[in-house]
Amino acid sequence: MLSKKVVKDIQSLALKKHREETGLFIAEGPKIVEELLEIVPGQMVAIYATEEWSKGTNYKNVETISSIELEKLSGLKTPNEVVAVLEQLKSSRPHGSSFTLYLDTVQDPGNFGTIIRIADWFGVKDIVCSTGCADLYNPKVVQATMASIARVNVYYDEEETWLNAQTKTIYAASLHGKPLSNFEKVNTGILIIGNESKGIRKEFLQRASEFITVPKRGAAESLNAAVASGIILSHSTIGRAFCD
Amino acid sequence: MLSKKVVKDIQSLALKKHREETGLFIAEGPKIVEELLEIVPGQMVAIYATEEWSKGTNYKNVETISSIELEKLSGLKTPNEVVAVLEQLKSSRPHGSSFTLYLDTVQDPGNFGTIIRIADWFGVKDIVCSTGCADLYNPKVVQATMASIARVNVYYDEEETWLNAQTKTIYAASLHGKPLSNFEKVNTGILIIGNESKGIRKEFLQRASEFITVPKRGAAESLNAAVASGIILSHSTIGRAFCD
Repeated sequence: MLSKKVVKDIQSLALKKHREETGLFIAEGPKIVEELLEIVPGQMVAIYATEEWSKGTNYKNVETISSIELEKLSGLKTPNEVVAVLEQLKSSRPHGSSFTLYLDTVQDPGNFGTIIRIADWFGVKDIVCSTGCADLYNPKVVQATMASIARVNVYYDEEETWLNAQTKTIYAASLHGKPLSNFEKVNTGILIIGNESKGIRKEFLQRASEFITVPKRGAAESLNAAVASGIILSHSTIGRAFCD
Repeated sequence: MLSKKVVKDIQSLALKKHREETGLFIAEGPKIVEELLEIVPGQMVAIYATEEWSKGTNYKNVETISSIELEKLSGLKTPNEVVAVLEQLKSSRPHGSSFTLYLDTVQDPGNFGTIIRIADWFGVKDIVCSTGCADLYNPKVVQATMASIARVNVYYDEEETWLNAQTKTIYAASLHGKPLSNFEKVNTGILIIGNESKGIRKEFLQRASEFITVPKRGAAESLNAAVASGIILSHSTIGRAFCD
């Protein structure tokens, strides 16, 4: 049986303050936890799971818990078999040598996590975040990454000096740029994605030399930030390549 | 001051049962409400707003409320100036004459609403939903559509007979299809998008003649359903066109 202290400690990881104090975070559900066990087994601090999940895993340090206990630990609406506690991942300041995403104040945890998953799909290894972006270890971010959190280097540019130090072409996703179809396949450079409602801050826009717009055929005022990222990255990585 | 009954009636619209009984739904926040007032003014039943918003609108039937009352009415974490009650929109069975999206059990409200917004961006006028899709008037769906709910015809295929009656080419978004780059620009046809974790049901897959995959360059296991929809629609509408 779980002690009250353990339950409280795990529940407290829903808050950024406690995640920062402990250097820990939570991941939930068989799909994500099993993938994290494969990619970053060394980060696992503890796993709490129902008997069913415990039986099916080779991992040894699992504490089997009841479904009532799982409900207490889980931050999900529908708790899903397993809750893992992990040490936060190391991140490093990227050199901008390959394609890098720069996120300016992407605040919605679902969008942020989805962008990390998209980056991982398209082989983008580095994401740099301005101040004001959601916290990487916010449970909603972690869940939306679907374990891609462990494969993409996410670096917080606390001083907001990173962009100024780059020499590669800087692209900005914008509603008033050139249509995506004007751009060739891009292998290096930096793509800035802006805040969900305010777009990219002026000081960052001024750093960009190319402005990309996803052509609109209908009437919606804007595209979701994660969807726009996916469309531009898809184009940037397959881009004109398929014309050959 | 709002009566207890009004507060209760509006709060009850968070539940599908009450939305069905009354034929009403809720939209929140200046951006969405103002756009809905422009597109479908006739659907507005009531608007409750803070003094600030009330002052700035030309719309006459606004009940000004306090921020405490707004908090009671709002389903958002951060209530946002205005709550509108609307009559549900009319929908019609599409003839499949132009490009139509078919959603098979897209359950996540955020994904569903985002797909409606994407459709609106790319000029797709019709979305057909299988049974098991999220409810169009779920507040999370409405908010994610960003008012595109009023510009896209969303039809629930309760009997699941719609797809069988179509003669246009049926495309399926799949992890095991041909790369997106193999496909020309598509102007007519049907694109099936599957459930977030289970994909497209077998009986629907069998109806498709083309299977589209967004090429992967990295390691993520899959793409978010809304993001995949956006990438395929972007390609389908601009597609090879830009090679000319």
